[in-house]
Amino acid sequence: MGVENLACPCLTRLQAKTRSQENYPIPEPGPNEVLLKMHSVGICGSDVHYWQHGRIGNFVVKKPMVLGHEASGTVVKVGSLVTHLKPGDRVAIEPGAPRESDEFCKIGRYNLSPTIFFCATPPDDGNLCRFYKHNSNFCYKLPDNVTFEEGALIEPLSVGIHACRRAGVTLGNKVFVCGAGPIGLVSLLVAKAMGAAQVVVSDLSAARLSKAKEVGADFILQISNESPQEIANQVEGLLGCKPEVTIECTGVEASIQAGIYATHSGGTLVLVGLGSEMTSVPLVHAATREVDIKGVFRYCNTWPMAISMLASKSVNVKPLVTHRFPLEKALEAFETSKKGLGLKVMIKCDPNDQNP
Amino acid sequence: MGVENLACPCLTRLQAKTRSQENYPIPEPGPNEVLLKMHSVGICGSDVHYWQHGRIGNFVVKKPMVLGHEASGTVVKVGSLVTHLKPGDRVAIEPGAPRESDEFCKIGRYNLSPTIFFCATPPDDGNLCRFYKHNSNFCYKLPDNVTFEEGALIEPLSVGIHACRRAGVTLGNKVFVCGAGPIGLVSLLVAKAMGAAQVVVSDLSAARLSKAKEVGADFILQISNESPQEIANQVEGLLGCKPEVTIECTGVEASIQAGIYATHSGGTLVLVGLGSEMTSVPLVHAATREVDIKGVFRYCNTWPMAISMLASKSVNVKPLVTHRFPLEKALEAFETSKKGLGLKVMIKCDPNDQNP
Amino acid sequence: MGVENLACPCLTRLQAKTRSQENYPIPEPGPNEVLLKMHSVGICGSDVHYWQHGRIGNFVVKKPMVLGHEASGTVVKVGSLVTHLKPGDRVAIEPGAPRESDEFCKIGRYNLSPTIFFCATPPDDGNLCRFYKHNSNFCYKLPDNVTFEEGALIEPLSVGIHACRRAGVTLGNKVFVCGAGPIGLVSLLVAKAMGAAQVVVSDLSAARLSKAKEVGADFILQISNESPQEIANQVEGLLGCKPEVTIECTGVEASIQAGIYATHSGGTLVLVGLGSEMTSVPLVHAATREVDIKGVFRYCNTWPMAISMLASKSVNVKPLVTHRFPLEKALEAFETSKKGLGLKVMIKCDPNDQNP
Amino acid sequence: MGVENLACPCLTRLQAKTRSQENYPIPEPGPNEVLLKMHSVGICGSDVHYWQHGRIGNFVVKKPMVLGHEASGTVVKVGSLVTHLKPGDRVAIEPGAPRESDEFCKIGRYNLSPTIFFCATPPDDGNLCRFYKHNSNFCYKLPDNVTFEEGALIEPLSVGIHACRRAGVTLGNKVFVCGAGPIGLVSLLVAKAMGAAQVVVSDLSAARLSKAKEVGADFILQISNESPQEIANQVEGLLGCKPEVTIECTGVEASIQAGIYATHSGGTLVLVGLGSEMTSVPLVHAATREVDIKGVFRYCNTWPMAISMLASKSVNVKPLVTHRFPLEKALEAFETSKKGLGLKVMIKCDPNDQNP
Repeated sequence: MGVENLACPCLTRLQAKTRSQENYPIPEPGPNEVLLKMHSVGICGSDVHYWQHGRIGNFVVKKPMVLGHEASGTVVKVGSLVTHLKPGDRVAIEPGAPRESDEFCKIGRYNLSPTIFFCATPPDDGNLCRFYKHNSNFCYKLPDNVTFEEGALIEPLSVGIHACRRAGVTLGNKVFVCGAGPIGLVSLLVAKAMGAAQVVVSDLSAARLSKAKEVGADFILQISNESPQEIANQVEGLLGCKPEVTIECTGVEASIQAGIYATHSGGTLVLVGLGSEMTSVPLVHAATREVDIKGVFRYCNTWPMAISMLASKSVNVKPLVTHRFPLEKALEAFETSKKGLGLKVMIKCDPNDQNP
Repeated sequence: MGVENLACPCLTRLQAKTRSQENYPIPEPGPNEVLLKMHSVGICGSDVHYWQHGRIGNFVVKKPMVLGHEASGTVVKVGSLVTHLKPGDRVAIEPGAPRESDEFCKIGRYNLSPTIFFCATPPDDGNLCRFYKHNSNFCYKLPDNVTFEEGALIEPLSVGIHACRRAGVTLGNKVFVCGAGPIGLVSLLVAKAMGAAQVVVSDLSAARLSKAKEVGADFILQISNESPQEIANQVEGLLGCKPEVTIECTGVEASIQAGIYATHSGGTLVLVGLGSEMTSVPLVHAATREVDIKGVFRYCNTWPMAISMLASKSVNVKPLVTHRFPLEKALEAFETSKKGLGLKVMIKCDPNDQNP
Repeated sequence: MGVENLACPCLTRLQAKTRSQENYPIPEPGPNEVLLKMHSVGICGSDVHYWQHGRIGNFVVKKPMVLGHEASGTVVKVGSLVTHLKPGDRVAIEPGAPRESDEFCKIGRYNLSPTIFFCATPPDDGNLCRFYKHNSNFCYKLPDNVTFEEGALIEPLSVGIHACRRAGVTLGNKVFVCGAGPIGLVSLLVAKAMGAAQVVVSDLSAARLSKAKEVGADFILQISNESPQEIANQVEGLLGCKPEVTIECTGVEASIQAGIYATHSGGTLVLVGLGSEMTSVPLVHAATREVDIKGVFRYCNTWPMAISMLASKSVNVKPLVTHRFPLEKALEAFETSKKGLGLKVMIKCDPNDQNP
Repeated sequence: MGVENLACPCLTRLQAKTRSQENYPIPEPGPNEVLLKMHSVGICGSDVHYWQHGRIGNFVVKKPMVLGHEASGTVVKVGSLVTHLKPGDRVAIEPGAPRESDEFCKIGRYNLSPTIFFCATPPDDGNLCRFYKHNSNFCYKLPDNVTFEEGALIEPLSVGIHACRRAGVTLGNKVFVCGAGPIGLVSLLVAKAMGAAQVVVSDLSAARLSKAKEVGADFILQISNESPQEIANQVEGLLGCKPEVTIECTGVEASIQAGIYATHSGGTLVLVGLGSEMTSVPLVHAATREVDIKGVFRYCNTWPMAISMLASKSVNVKPLVTHRFPLEKALEAFETSKKGLGLKVMIKCDPNDQNP
């Protein structure tokens, strides 16, 4: 039975209230594209948010949009110009693929390109479906010893890589990670892989902190109602000095403030979590100690290094997956993710292969 | 008549209300120090602030403190270990001289050293006096074609150098400088010297903006009651695009906000001006466009390059000096500076040479 | 009269011995391309070399190839997807346009892409002709106050920009430029524009050095038969210290050796000129003083900043043009360039507009 | 029995032929110095070279010089100005301590300071003795879980850190290390700790390569009489691509050439091993692929990060020690090291504690 005869079920989000699974025609790859049979797609907080609210900031869902952007699959058809991939290749998908070679692409910061295609950011469809076509230059072949789920997890891992790279994490650093959700945990994993000597992870939840400890945190810090200054002091107490790098993954104002107070003079605070539009921060305190404040927007140039790391077993992302659902039960998977149960919910799109 | 027989009049700030000029004994240089006959000392806003209020943030004047830290003079005596200077050498003084080789000094960011000696930051005395001793490694010989006043102006120029360097100003950049006071103007001068193609300078004062235009601003923007977003739009309108770099020299919250909105994605906002402790800023707007926010604390490693620039006439700081007073009229000089008249008030410490 | 009815005369180089001018059909732009009416094309040493020898290193002319890659022209037709340019726009052409978004393109170093299209590097045709089509993303609109010839000169200027940027030239630097040909001169111009305080230029030819002095060299050094060490000493003597940056534009072994000896500890030697395959150099001398040795291959991300610099009159490349010929006399132009007369020979492709 | 009453046996090297152990008076620490009771001192190739030949390059032993510079000990007395250390503190010694705050120190590259004090580089004495005084700012307190021998091994480890840092080793990199001696091995350890995905180590000796494999090499490559190009091809074959970084630790011309051919376009070759004064290298090949060539001279700013790494068990240097001798048998230890037996020979200076 050829690919062409299959319908393509997708999980979509309508502008109005409907959240449904629909059948789309199987797409035809363009000259530089590949058609993929999807295997594993992780659910991200933004997927849940679009599903529930239909918008994030200025990005508004105005027509049915397929969700999903943490994904891997198998090449089933290649466009006429594609030479580096062939049917049967297992690939991880980088969801952001620039549409044109603009100023940002030319300097290697294509994540900032305003016209980039990005899976499941309106109006662009995601890849939570059976068959999906994508720019072949943004599909990366997986070695045999890297699973499809590891391939799908490269997306959240990339946020951690981009954050740690922007922070300049280097050998022997002390690092403070605020937040022990999936992004906090991948930041922890990457910081250690880049040579951080000690990492403190903070969170409100003891369960999440326990997971952080399990995957490698040197110290955990449960927050209740301490002031930002007190949190900073506790971090310094645990490490014996202020951390050179703080990676803020919550977006909470008090946590950002704590990040500024906590960071060593001359260090860097990276903002990964996003909160309200305006934030009140001790800028003078940051400025006079030359603590740089840098945001991250998605990532760029992370898939090849992530694959290298996974292939050499230098980083282990497998413990992040706590739930799995077949594509038919995608709505149930989203409910699970929405409830905040576990860490990463993985949807298995291939009815013939539900393995990791 | 030997140096040793002279009294050393200094302008000091008592902890209480007295503002007086006193006679100090002429100091004896230590093994690695030089004794200087002071020539020109510029008045900085911080000098005026200490004089009026006796404190800046946590730095509190608790005993009479000699003011002044923008200075140049002539070597009259050298310590036993000094080999690179000799009596008669004309030098510019870097006011911050580390006391110990701590972690910050070792990595070349000695301005962040918590134990640094710094002229006229309590409890350390400044150099607004007849004779002054200083760490010889932080006295830099002036070439014949650089005047004492240019030497003294290296201090404010250094703030501009450090700001532009932290911003990464490079060839062809568009730059937005907020504030047309002395620091705004030196930032403008340095940005142009580093290859900026076009610089917009904003201020409330038409007179200051006129000076900015005179010393090289490509565009000036007089602010009245526009919103931060409107200011950002006007900057973009003038330049034809958003500036890669914004150098904020006012410390005003609305101006910092404008700086964030104005800066090009992937660019840098440098905070030079300091305002209130907490500042409300559109951090999400900065973070998702990867606009880095960096403060500057004083400067490091700027004197040698500043001297090279002045010697090669690549930058012209002379127009910054608008008033001159002999040391005997130091109080009058401070009153002038306090009133905000002109740009840079220069005090001439050598009764036998009041030349620039 | 429409563009379509015109034949397109081009200067080509046959694999065999013929060097002729031929008529080609006017090309049709693809969806992302623009068709240009060429205006000014400078002759580069590599054009002359291909013309004479039919090969440079591994690049061999195997079929007739149109020469020329320092060029500017006017858009006469745009492809269906082009939105940022329209007929009538005057543009400068970046001759290297990547064919695919490979690893080098993604990180912003597209000049290293092995599959890049590059004008007049076999087998790719250049643009020394009446009509030429090019990737629209690598055509940059010229402001009204930048001439076509300045637009064409952005190509050699880009070599200087890339070299100075790789060298990290910054405020107050002393720079040693070996060679006073066109590339040496643009390196000089760019180094000064980036804030270099003093530049020494060396060459064998007094006439070339005189031109270097004219366009801004602080010191010139005529080489005869000095040893590399002697040259290094002379450079240090002129500058009063070793230069932080040396830009080697000759490719001559002795000059590369001199560059290593001359450069300040911790500085950078950039290799622009290319010589023989193997070079004997004092590597231990470079290594133990941490003098970095960096090559440049063409350039990337230089056109926008070059246009900004030209528009703001921060750099003046006009004195580089010493000869002009209409396209009909292209062979004569090549003979002139081959003889080494003057600096830059410009070919004027538009019979109705031979202005600069 | 007080420290003051002990004689201080040292291993010295006389200008002439004598290589002897002598008694020196116990030194008195200056105001900023500490007196140390030495514990463990590793023998470096340079120690053996001075011992045998009395010179390395321009550094000539002209009077008896105490050998040794890879060392750790215990503070027994502190100078009047020392506050961060106290008697009883266990410390690792950074052998290079700048004598003055010159231009190199100010920018954080103090290893390039021409007047630096450096243990066992003539005319400065080393620390292979019972008691030794050192600049307290260059003695770093060891945590309880770091042994004296690990402290002594920070010196060779620092060479690896400096090399990998200058190379810019980062997450997912492929790295080629030429040479499996102590420096090759520490480069391997550090590259992995900084996130390198795969490291190939080459050497002539199967025994050394076996050790490399043991401490973490992903691939080993035994060299016999392959050409540099062949070696490069083999490295690419093992890794599946060219390494972004090559760290050359042999100084052999053919190996440096192989390093240039092997390194990925846009990558970096770091020269750690030093060979003959002039080296013939394919510079054009390096330059046109923008493979940067960087040397390392000793190291700077490595002790704190090394201690962090050792304390957090992120790097394991213990397998490097293969032989131990008490100070009384120092000559025997030198003979062992000279014969190239094992990797690191450690001399134990404390007669009451010969533990690691």
